[in-house]
Amino acid sequence: MQYKLSPSILSADFYKLGEDIRQTEENGAEYLHFDVMDGVFVPSISFGMPVLASIKPLVKQVMDTHLMITEPIRYVEAFAKAGADILTIHYEACEDVRATLEKIRECGMKTGLSISPDTPVEVLREFLGEVDMFLIMTVHPGFGGQKLIPETLDKVRELRGMLNERGLETDIQVDGGIYASNIKDALDAGANVIVAGSAVFKGNPGENTKELMEIIKNYE
Amino acid sequence: MQYKLSPSILSADFYKLGEDIRQTEENGAEYLHFDVMDGVFVPSISFGMPVLASIKPLVKQVMDTHLMITEPIRYVEAFAKAGADILTIHYEACEDVRATLEKIRECGMKTGLSISPDTPVEVLREFLGEVDMFLIMTVHPGFGGQKLIPETLDKVRELRGMLNERGLETDIQVDGGIYASNIKDALDAGANVIVAGSAVFKGNPGENTKELMEIIKNYE
Repeated sequence: MQYKLSPSILSADFYKLGEDIRQTEENGAEYLHFDVMDGVFVPSISFGMPVLASIKPLVKQVMDTHLMITEPIRYVEAFAKAGADILTIHYEACEDVRATLEKIRECGMKTGLSISPDTPVEVLREFLGEVDMFLIMTVHPGFGGQKLIPETLDKVRELRGMLNERGLETDIQVDGGIYASNIKDALDAGANVIVAGSAVFKGNPGENTKELMEIIKNYE
Repeated sequence: MQYKLSPSILSADFYKLGEDIRQTEENGAEYLHFDVMDGVFVPSISFGMPVLASIKPLVKQVMDTHLMITEPIRYVEAFAKAGADILTIHYEACEDVRATLEKIRECGMKTGLSISPDTPVEVLREFLGEVDMFLIMTVHPGFGGQKLIPETLDKVRELRGMLNERGLETDIQVDGGIYASNIKDALDAGANVIVAGSAVFKGNPGENTKELMEIIKNYE
């Protein structure tokens, strides 16, 4: 199992975004997380294609893109063009989840499938072995800086169990309320791709990345 | 009549956004234009509240915010909090235009009302004297880098005529496909607030702002 940190730029300072990102890359974060929100699927509008397109040529990090938008199938091609490497969609946002995943693959990206806190983990069972990554939201999507909902880690445990039963080593990502103080709880539950927003970008992004990376590396 | 340049950050480099903006401010652009797109009212997702909130404390420019989103009334308060000074909504996007304008005023912002190229200018007549700025879209909203649709300047001329008849000096903004080569056409038609995206941010934002500002100042 490979463990990764994916700093979420939702909590970054957009005035000096490149500088913030560079500090995460230099300190070992191999992924970079983009929380795309449309104000319809979730109650905020964050950013989209032009932000990804500006960053893509200047980072080597995996562009880990999380679409909190309604009917993401409409914009799969646009996000591929903008530079997404992984495209994660929400189970709750799609009329046809499987067609959306298929389109992501066709566009040459890795597939991610996410559920919000109110959605039972059982809905993911039929997609085991079909997607590259599952994302278990550990807060209600929409804003940075929230507290992790402890019950969501039970879903991570259950999903890791389902995957193990099938002999699958699929990535499980967690997103929301993760800090140095609780990152081990998420890893213990079975998550291996850790999104961190405020924990990375509030304060010194370089120092914060270093601290979180040390916990993750020592866990391996 | 006061003439203003409002550089649109839609065409900026988000990796070094602060630096690009600073160059526009230092070279005399008093406004800064935010093209907010939700992927529902228009076919792209640009950026929203977190981008405005990052920039607000670092600029003295007027935060001129153009919501290309469906039912903007839902997010009037959120954009006020994020730092918008002017909030422009689309006639086509609102179930109740007047209630939306009222809410913008209540939240302490200036009101803007916009129409897309396919909407007749006549629909604005009933709002004369009620809003602080009209925005006549000179391209179909959704993307930067498009060519100005010449017929839209006829709408600017007609609207300026309607305002003059009523003795009103309301601002008219134009947005889309404006460059040094055609800015005078827009001013001649009666626009006094000029949005420029690619014309400012492609190449050297400082030099470009200077060039456009000179045309605008000499026009006064």
